[in-house]
Amino acid sequence: MNIGIDMMGGDFAPLEAVKGVQLYLSGHNIPAKLTLIGNKEQLEKLVTEHKTPLENITIVHAEQIIGMHEHPTKALKEKQQSSIAIGFQLLASGKMDAFISAGNTGAMLVGALFSIKALEGVIRPTISSIIPKSEGGTGLLLDVGLNADCKPEQLNQFAIMGTVYAKHILGIENPKVGLINVGEEEGKGNLLAQATYPLLKENKHINFIGNIEGRDVLLDKADVMVCEGFTGNIILKLAESLYEISNQKKVESPYFERFNFENYGGTPVLGVAKPVIIGHGISGSKAFMNMIHLAQLMIEKKLMEKMKEELS
Amino acid sequence: MNIGIDMMGGDFAPLEAVKGVQLYLSGHNIPAKLTLIGNKEQLEKLVTEHKTPLENITIVHAEQIIGMHEHPTKALKEKQQSSIAIGFQLLASGKMDAFISAGNTGAMLVGALFSIKALEGVIRPTISSIIPKSEGGTGLLLDVGLNADCKPEQLNQFAIMGTVYAKHILGIENPKVGLINVGEEEGKGNLLAQATYPLLKENKHINFIGNIEGRDVLLDKADVMVCEGFTGNIILKLAESLYEISNQKKVESPYFERFNFENYGGTPVLGVAKPVIIGHGISGSKAFMNMIHLAQLMIEKKLMEKMKEELS
Repeated sequence: MNIGIDMMGGDFAPLEAVKGVQLYLSGHNIPAKLTLIGNKEQLEKLVTEHKTPLENITIVHAEQIIGMHEHPTKALKEKQQSSIAIGFQLLASGKMDAFISAGNTGAMLVGALFSIKALEGVIRPTISSIIPKSEGGTGLLLDVGLNADCKPEQLNQFAIMGTVYAKHILGIENPKVGLINVGEEEGKGNLLAQATYPLLKENKHINFIGNIEGRDVLLDKADVMVCEGFTGNIILKLAESLYEISNQKKVESPYFERFNFENYGGTPVLGVAKPVIIGHGISGSKAFMNMIHLAQLMIEKKLMEKMKEELS
Repeated sequence: MNIGIDMMGGDFAPLEAVKGVQLYLSGHNIPAKLTLIGNKEQLEKLVTEHKTPLENITIVHAEQIIGMHEHPTKALKEKQQSSIAIGFQLLASGKMDAFISAGNTGAMLVGALFSIKALEGVIRPTISSIIPKSEGGTGLLLDVGLNADCKPEQLNQFAIMGTVYAKHILGIENPKVGLINVGEEEGKGNLLAQATYPLLKENKHINFIGNIEGRDVLLDKADVMVCEGFTGNIILKLAESLYEISNQKKVESPYFERFNFENYGGTPVLGVAKPVIIGHGISGSKAFMNMIHLAQLMIEKKLMEKMKEELS
């Protein structure tokens, strides 16, 4: 198993990336092999400083960096020697089994969509987010922004991919799938939700519990919450703001603390053939460590194969 | 000025409605005339018990009640002697200048859409909600569920109606209008948001500040936040759940306290020729009082005429 990491992506790269690698390696008896992509000179210096065990890492030099605000398609095309471009080349050629970056999100998405094949039958890959539930559990919301306009068939696929992820990665047995909607009864909603409901109801691969409303998003009603990427993105960013607001208001609540998305690993792109994980720009060492863990788990659980089976 | 109130609507009717009327009358030197619609016997008894000053109220008997879970269109058609049906008859005939109910929301919407004329040029009326801002102010979100699918022209009208409401009712000078979207830059978003942006940008009747994201909804970025009713409804109900969750978690925060929507008057239907205000089912006396205040303010400020001017 070989997991690739863009060491130059994120606001605190490469230092926090190196520290994350260090955290990961020190916490594992049999760690995965890691491919660290970035400025070789800088990385070698940092790795030496941090006494990172060298037997598990390979440094691959990348001459260029795609900045956080560069145009994704353009940058990826023009900067073939960037850490993100090289990462996707190594992933596509089979030299790595997963790729992680906290860099330019758009470039990561473009890379995932165009360098790595979509799973057979997948209309469009999706990105999801963990949602902390007020009763203590963890839900999965998808799509959170990759597909702002969707067809009912896409939402149906999100439900399947979300179910597989919730089951094997979040460890939720028989995850309850809810369709995000404006009312509980069948027949409610906009045209998309109305057309999606019967597909989910008929879908034998999921445990569909019906519509869920905005008030249910933070409750323990559904484990997998499905919507198009417009609504999902608004929900996610609103949820993210709760952490900042509760901090600002000096609300000391372990629950709102859980909305600190920096602590989570990152967002995997679902529906592509290999694990691609996109981290927050503000990722610290803990987030990098978590992303490596997540990639390892996705590989070990053969998540992509399982999704492929359920989708066919 | 004559304000009509459905005294039989809401979970605690007619008692809380009578107490709300009492609160309103006792707080005003020159109150509006009130038309109380409901079971005459019950109301006369309660009014006597509460020593409500009779010179400002007229009781209109309604033989029937539309239940909270009845089918709106069917109930309104079949129960012509219900308090909601009579309310709309009196409003349409000019005997009342505004109508308030905490009863069946669907029936109130159907009544507002079909008994009262829409303002000239309005494609579809809308409902909005107040959003407490973390910096202390108050924003307006619309549409919050009446129009789950929208055209760009509708969102453009929501922006105008929201601006007029924010200016004259919320007292916000030159309200900032934001388009709810998945990214800040022009060109971002789903097809609807992409097509709406240029309309808002060109609109001389509003102070458009551009796209706002989910993380901006609770911040002081925009005063009037525009989206279709699907996303708006999800945001509103998610916001409502914050009050319950923070209560449950014993988070003592004056900010999250402000998400107790029971305290606000209710939701006015905007874009119709006369004020129609829909209250929460759980409305207590304070909510009824606030709704009467709101109706009075909307009449005094000639809000509907102002909207009509801005829309033309």
